[in-house]
Amino acid sequence: MSKTEKQAPDRTAATARPDNGGGTAATGVSRRRLLGTAGAAGATGLVLGAGGGAAGYAATRPEEPAALTTIGATEAMFHGKHQPGITTPLQARGHLVAFDLVAGAGRKEAAALLRRWSAVAKELMAGRAAAGGADGPGHDTGIALDAGPSSLTVTFGFGRTFFARTGLADRLPAALDPLPVFSADALDARRSGGDLWAQIGADDALVAFHALRALQKEAAGTARVRWQMNGFNRTPGATARPMTTRNLMGQIDGTGNPKPTDEDFDRRVFVLASPGKPQEWMEGGSYAVVRRIRMLLDDWEKLPVEHQERVIGRRKADGAPLSGGTETTEMDLDKAGPDGRPVIPGNAHARISSPEKNGGAAMLRRPFSYHDGIAEDGAPDAGLLFICWQADPFRGFVPVQRKLDRGDALSPFLRHEASAVFAVPGGAAAGEYVGQRLLES
Amino acid sequence: MSKTEKQAPDRTAATARPDNGGGTAATGVSRRRLLGTAGAAGATGLVLGAGGGAAGYAATRPEEPAALTTIGATEAMFHGKHQPGITTPLQARGHLVAFDLVAGAGRKEAAALLRRWSAVAKELMAGRAAAGGADGPGHDTGIALDAGPSSLTVTFGFGRTFFARTGLADRLPAALDPLPVFSADALDARRSGGDLWAQIGADDALVAFHALRALQKEAAGTARVRWQMNGFNRTPGATARPMTTRNLMGQIDGTGNPKPTDEDFDRRVFVLASPGKPQEWMEGGSYAVVRRIRMLLDDWEKLPVEHQERVIGRRKADGAPLSGGTETTEMDLDKAGPDGRPVIPGNAHARISSPEKNGGAAMLRRPFSYHDGIAEDGAPDAGLLFICWQADPFRGFVPVQRKLDRGDALSPFLRHEASAVFAVPGGAAAGEYVGQRLLES
Ligand code: HEM
Ligand code: HEM
Repeated sequence: MSKTEKQAPDRTAATARPDNGGGTAATGVSRRRLLGTAGAAGATGLVLGAGGGAAGYAATRPEEPAALTTIGATEAMFHGKHQPGITTPLQARGHLVAFDLVAGAGRKEAAALLRRWSAVAKELMAGRAAAGGADGPGHDTGIALDAGPSSLTVTFGFGRTFFARTGLADRLPAALDPLPVFSADALDARRSGGDLWAQIGADDALVAFHALRALQKEAAGTARVRWQMNGFNRTPGATARPMTTRNLMGQIDGTGNPKPTDEDFDRRVFVLASPGKPQEWMEGGSYAVVRRIRMLLDDWEKLPVEHQERVIGRRKADGAPLSGGTETTEMDLDKAGPDGRPVIPGNAHARISSPEKNGGAAMLRRPFSYHDGIAEDGAPDAGLLFICWQADPFRGFVPVQRKLDRGDALSPFLRHEASAVFAVPGGAAAGEYVGQRLLES
Repeated sequence: MSKTEKQAPDRTAATARPDNGGGTAATGVSRRRLLGTAGAAGATGLVLGAGGGAAGYAATRPEEPAALTTIGATEAMFHGKHQPGITTPLQARGHLVAFDLVAGAGRKEAAALLRRWSAVAKELMAGRAAAGGADGPGHDTGIALDAGPSSLTVTFGFGRTFFARTGLADRLPAALDPLPVFSADALDARRSGGDLWAQIGADDALVAFHALRALQKEAAGTARVRWQMNGFNRTPGATARPMTTRNLMGQIDGTGNPKPTDEDFDRRVFVLASPGKPQEWMEGGSYAVVRRIRMLLDDWEKLPVEHQERVIGRRKADGAPLSGGTETTEMDLDKAGPDGRPVIPGNAHARISSPEKNGGAAMLRRPFSYHDGIAEDGAPDAGLLFICWQADPFRGFVPVQRKLDRGDALSPFLRHEASAVFAVPGGAAAGEYVGQRLLES
């Protein structure tokens, strides 16, 4: 099967957005336009086709029109100033996978791997088969056959240990210094760290798994999986709320995030390296702090909702600050209630973590929820794959987590189980691969 | 927050389908109609809104119209002749959870639990909060707040061990006799069996998790989780293929399933018990065989595609039988190639499992894929949560698995890791709870 055959018949590539980010607010996602009339008719039929299932196939969707919806057709761009998967809208499914270089693999092998990975990521993000094609040797697994790109993003990063192993110790950024130990850490070293990291996101679970297998295959002989985690968010269209997702505690999550329209968004989230400096290769990149944070849901769910709301400082139903307004209203941290005490409690999570209380420290949180069934202790093995993005973890994650760790109201319901930090270089320009400026300079 | 507030503003309940199944082909799913013009405009905007992400929020979907799409708005009916989740179209996310009654819990406690579970399932499937409401004591976790029903189904079943524990040994159906031991079984007893079973499916992962937590909460004090598994299928709209899904081997899966339009569909899949017989309570019910089947993907993916196709007897790209045609063309098991040998090999999985070669034995396969990361041996802990539905497992699953186990071409790439069989009674009539005819007769 050739690559072109894999294109769904009624998609045409429209308004591809070659730049992941640029100046301000672009999310680097383009929605492939369905063919005019047919597309519109299909969409209307899809939404208005009530009374479904009166006839047809068992365990199938008999009435779905033969067209991708937005979910399948949305395509994120591989090339750009920034890598995809940072400002890209949250996807329904995510995989995090860390690799360690095998003995004997050094800079040369790593460069070749990043070149292969970049080539694969670019093909898959466009909804095509992995390099090697659908058959023949090195063939594609076929798991994503006849699915659209489904907002697939693949994002690559380098861990602290990568640099010494590849003879690049002089390029190791100070931003990859080990994180301080926090009092509430219960970290599992086998699920922490890693030389290399890939974050995969897509709105279809099979498209995401397909990408994971393709990366693993390319890594064979050069790097082996150190740890791997699965996550999820809402399926687009499952909720009418346009902006933020909920986490497994039931809270609206993401409200306080810096917005790409903020004047200082780029400066906070992305590295703006000065040319000629040893970290020039990180220009346009960002640092990802990854924490697997277990939620102690059995305890949490016992709290009355009003108590849960005081723990965060926001209302559960709509995310509005306890100081009033709607989700987008700014928190009024000074507002006092009739009893003279602040309506957003002194230990509320959203107060303690706010830039206002942290000398402006901010990060872009872009998490996935995780749920791996029942843990050995009988509690749900579920929580947040907390991923935050910033120009410097020591001016983003670290000061904030230091304060939270010292005792915000949420901490008793959390357990940090794994931790890693990765340097995620800028996006590859056309013809380039991710990390080339590090590996070939 | 009251229950009505939780309804999305532009949904109206349309063409509710009160009967899950009835005579022939209904799938028991109704799609809530969006309000005429507004809905249509929203849908068109959604699909045609190309160039997405030019402005707006980081890590959000700025342009999504403030309306549920079909994914969120689709609602499966709780009441009906059959339980939902059997002929319901495959959902993107699934949870299987088995419970054992705690010491001291008997028939009375089990009846109360099934009554509570049924009440919760009905509310959640309609997109409302769990009993107890969104706040106050016993409040809803809020994880599904502002999401639509998202095709949620909850299906309940009884395992063999349930009957003696509840003093109902005289009602134990022969269909729940232990399965024979198959030569390739590598079953983990801790993830097999169970007194009670719930299957949850939804097109949104948070909606599914919400339902799982709600069931667990109702079970507290009466039953404890024995095992729990997570699965997934394609997100609707991610592919243009209307009928079948793919599995993690990349194959189109579900083609050979009996169709609700087949004359003998009901007789094969559902129990048509004679009144007055001890198993009258199973009228309209079905038996679910659940097998967690690991795929040995590292081995499988090494096979050339033509070899993979001979293992199944169908083409990978489009699911057509190797004897020719398209996916829906019947297999021609007698057709020989130029070399005189059958083009669908003698040990091909689809040949060996076909009703034609099994005295008509047939089952409705309705699986979820699973992927729990990397197993201890470094291989992907991934495969199929194989669930098949039939009026009698000894005339459906058992004879077919006996033959497959004796050596079809697929078996070397599979490992059956867990097994369970559940009696899934018919759907609850209005005012009734699932299992009432067993527990109160
Ligand atoms: C499972 C763990 C966590 C949960 C469930 C959680 C939940 C929340 C919620 C519900 C909010 C309010 C809504 C919003 O602005 O998104 C919030 C805000 C925030 N959280 Fe967390 N959080 C967690 C961990 C963390 C960690 C580890 C950090 C950083 C060290 C962090 C930093 C922030 C920041 C910066 C805000 C925004 C505050 C503002 O409004 O300016 N959170 N979190
Ligand atoms: C991970 C394990 C399995 C995989 C990957 C698998 C895959 C497939 C595929 C690709 C097909 C052809 C397309 C289709 O008709 O759906 C098929 C057909 C079928 N399989 Fe399986 N299968 C598995 C296990 C089983 C088991 C355990 C049984 C029953 C004991 C079974 C029974 C059937 C039946 C009845 C058919 C339809 C044959 C016909 O066309 O009439 N399969 N399977």
